[in-house]
Amino acid sequence: MPVNLPLPDPDTLFPIAGVRIGVTEAGVRKVGRKDLTVVLLDEGASVAGVFTTNRFCAAPVQICREHLQANQGVRAMLINTGNANAGTGADGLARARSTCVALAQRLGVGEQQILPFSTGVIMEPLPNDRIEAGLAAAIADAQPGNWMRAAEGIMTTDTVPKAFGMKVSIGGKPVHVTGISKGAGMIRPNMATMLGFIATDACVHPSVMRQLALELAEGSFNRVTVDGDTSTNDSLVVIASNKAGHAAITALDSADGQALKTAMLDVARKLAQAIVRDGEGATKFIAIQVEGGRDSAECRKVAYAIAHSPLVKTAFFASDPNLGRILAAVGYAGIDDLDQSLIELFLDDVHVATQGGRNPSYREEDGQRVMRQSEITVRVGLGRGTAVETVWTCDLSHDYVTINADYRS
Amino acid sequence: MPVNLPLPDPDTLFPIAGVRIGVTEAGVRKVGRKDLTVVLLDEGASVAGVFTTNRFCAAPVQICREHLQANQGVRAMLINTGNANAGTGADGLARARSTCVALAQRLGVGEQQILPFSTGVIMEPLPNDRIEAGLAAAIADAQPGNWMRAAEGIMTTDTVPKAFGMKVSIGGKPVHVTGISKGAGMIRPNMATMLGFIATDACVHPSVMRQLALELAEGSFNRVTVDGDTSTNDSLVVIASNKAGHAAITALDSADGQALKTAMLDVARKLAQAIVRDGEGATKFIAIQVEGGRDSAECRKVAYAIAHSPLVKTAFFASDPNLGRILAAVGYAGIDDLDQSLIELFLDDVHVATQGGRNPSYREEDGQRVMRQSEITVRVGLGRGTAVETVWTCDLSHDYVTINADYRS
Repeated sequence: MPVNLPLPDPDTLFPIAGVRIGVTEAGVRKVGRKDLTVVLLDEGASVAGVFTTNRFCAAPVQICREHLQANQGVRAMLINTGNANAGTGADGLARARSTCVALAQRLGVGEQQILPFSTGVIMEPLPNDRIEAGLAAAIADAQPGNWMRAAEGIMTTDTVPKAFGMKVSIGGKPVHVTGISKGAGMIRPNMATMLGFIATDACVHPSVMRQLALELAEGSFNRVTVDGDTSTNDSLVVIASNKAGHAAITALDSADGQALKTAMLDVARKLAQAIVRDGEGATKFIAIQVEGGRDSAECRKVAYAIAHSPLVKTAFFASDPNLGRILAAVGYAGIDDLDQSLIELFLDDVHVATQGGRNPSYREEDGQRVMRQSEITVRVGLGRGTAVETVWTCDLSHDYVTINADYRS
Repeated sequence: MPVNLPLPDPDTLFPIAGVRIGVTEAGVRKVGRKDLTVVLLDEGASVAGVFTTNRFCAAPVQICREHLQANQGVRAMLINTGNANAGTGADGLARARSTCVALAQRLGVGEQQILPFSTGVIMEPLPNDRIEAGLAAAIADAQPGNWMRAAEGIMTTDTVPKAFGMKVSIGGKPVHVTGISKGAGMIRPNMATMLGFIATDACVHPSVMRQLALELAEGSFNRVTVDGDTSTNDSLVVIASNKAGHAAITALDSADGQALKTAMLDVARKLAQAIVRDGEGATKFIAIQVEGGRDSAECRKVAYAIAHSPLVKTAFFASDPNLGRILAAVGYAGIDDLDQSLIELFLDDVHVATQGGRNPSYREEDGQRVMRQSEITVRVGLGRGTAVETVWTCDLSHDYVTINADYRS
């Protein structure tokens, strides 16, 4: 049961000119489920990616980095669920390459113009034969209107497909942004067990694509956490098909650049928050805002310490205003010279702690009222400076344990 | 249900000459439970402590540090459960001081000769009046044979009391070591929501006590983790009553010093492991040994990343050899130049992964067999050097969620 996350609104999932999507059932791990997706790009699209920081990154992530570096222009993405092709060594790389070659041959493009993505169980051999056998059907299915099918096609433990879109005007032309994401567990910044694909028909010069992708990741997917596990496969890909007909954006800080970034960040943030709302076993959506830090880094440290604390997360699950657990997490977040007598803590509008101790006017029933809500903002004041950071997370419930104890069965 | 942790053996809980213990029911939080313990020391005992690194440390921890620094000689410890007196600001300090003054007056010693300890819920006012009212009964109860009662008296979410003792010979004299600990959740290195008290009648010069306490903590309590939450109240106190009649130990690396340290470390490690075996909801006891690191610090990083991963912990709970989750944790542990192609993974005697990929001879049923055990050793080879470190942890079960969702109710 995702937290306040309705099904995608098909009317906002705008087709993106120059981008066609095909989905099929390849039987990667189980039969009868959409598990293979191809995203086909017309020539001339600008593409950039941001990938997991996990040193044990999966074979497809290694190949994506290599192919993007080769800078031959991306013509297709190939995404499978059911198998992450991670922890698979040299054999895993060979199997991923084989799928790229097979798709490149069918499309008449170069192998380095394909980006592969895999998600699912780790350390099992990728059934590349079944993926290659499914390519013809996936390509035959390809059309611009398939975003919803793609959102379904990349799901693993997700309970709902995740897709958002919006429309803006740039240089007098209508510009569309549509994105999909997947992920529900093994989610933590830098990035999550998540795949995200955000496409626009806007015209963006290739030289600014990397910066655009980084800024989108920083403002969205790198600010969510479910369980603190950084996945081996996280990938965010940003695509500009350059079809909208306005003058190409050559700087992100231009008016057009800002307009596009704002629209794409809105989509990226909704996609990222959707992952938390659909967090494994989540019953609550929690924003953690840390203010008054000396810099963003220390605000993030504190926010993640709170967001990752199993004690804090279970207290949210129980709607128990056992809020000292939040203070304890602030204390061990790793700020060596933190002065506890400056700490302030708010739960929505309720002022829980002041000067490092219980606020004399705090009443347990006020904390209780907020804890019962399905959306909660925790606000911590550090009293050290002016930096502010927000991360989004969910609670830790019985269902998290059930889902992760049963994942492979 | 603690994992392979029998009740303490009363025959090994040796009285320590010069140390008397009294326990009573003071009604700190609930009526009818032993919640107040005093440990009375004859004049001349050597005492040292190691305390939480949490910047939000509790009032009693602040006072312990202050009183030890004053160096007036410790004459008593005062321990309450039910309330941690943490996150309580200046008022909490005043209440803790008030209990020290009350006990000092009754004993005719100085306020700075008392060390206070509190454990329980955070951010609620310490009922110091009820504690002070209970002092007379606790003192009246005091006798050297009360270690088992003390182990019971300091329990919170513990399901069994934790106490171990042993006897060694030093300088031709029999020397006794007896220790107690508490803790089951909010446990992570540096230190845990744990209290530990280890006493010996050995003769130890005050100048080596601090080093002895640090080395005992490093080899035991600082190597266990249940949920990664570093508590506000962790304290380990080491007491040498100097009654055994042998020549005082003035250097830890002397033969006598080594003999004593070995005995005390054995007790400390059993007490620390008992906390993990009794970890909230634990069904398995897991040793994580990381070998081949460049230094101890990076071995610990990797071991803790594995030990804290909710995905790894739930896989252990499910007896599911979903061992790629361990590799993923190795990958995000924070070693920037880790070469995944050098990673080896063993589960007890089963060689699961080699050169960063699945070991060709690994069979799922072998992994399954080990995962079903209640005691498991995970061994990771990093292939970078010769350092080795071991930490001990437990799995993450439904009961962890239940216990922490219901703790205050």
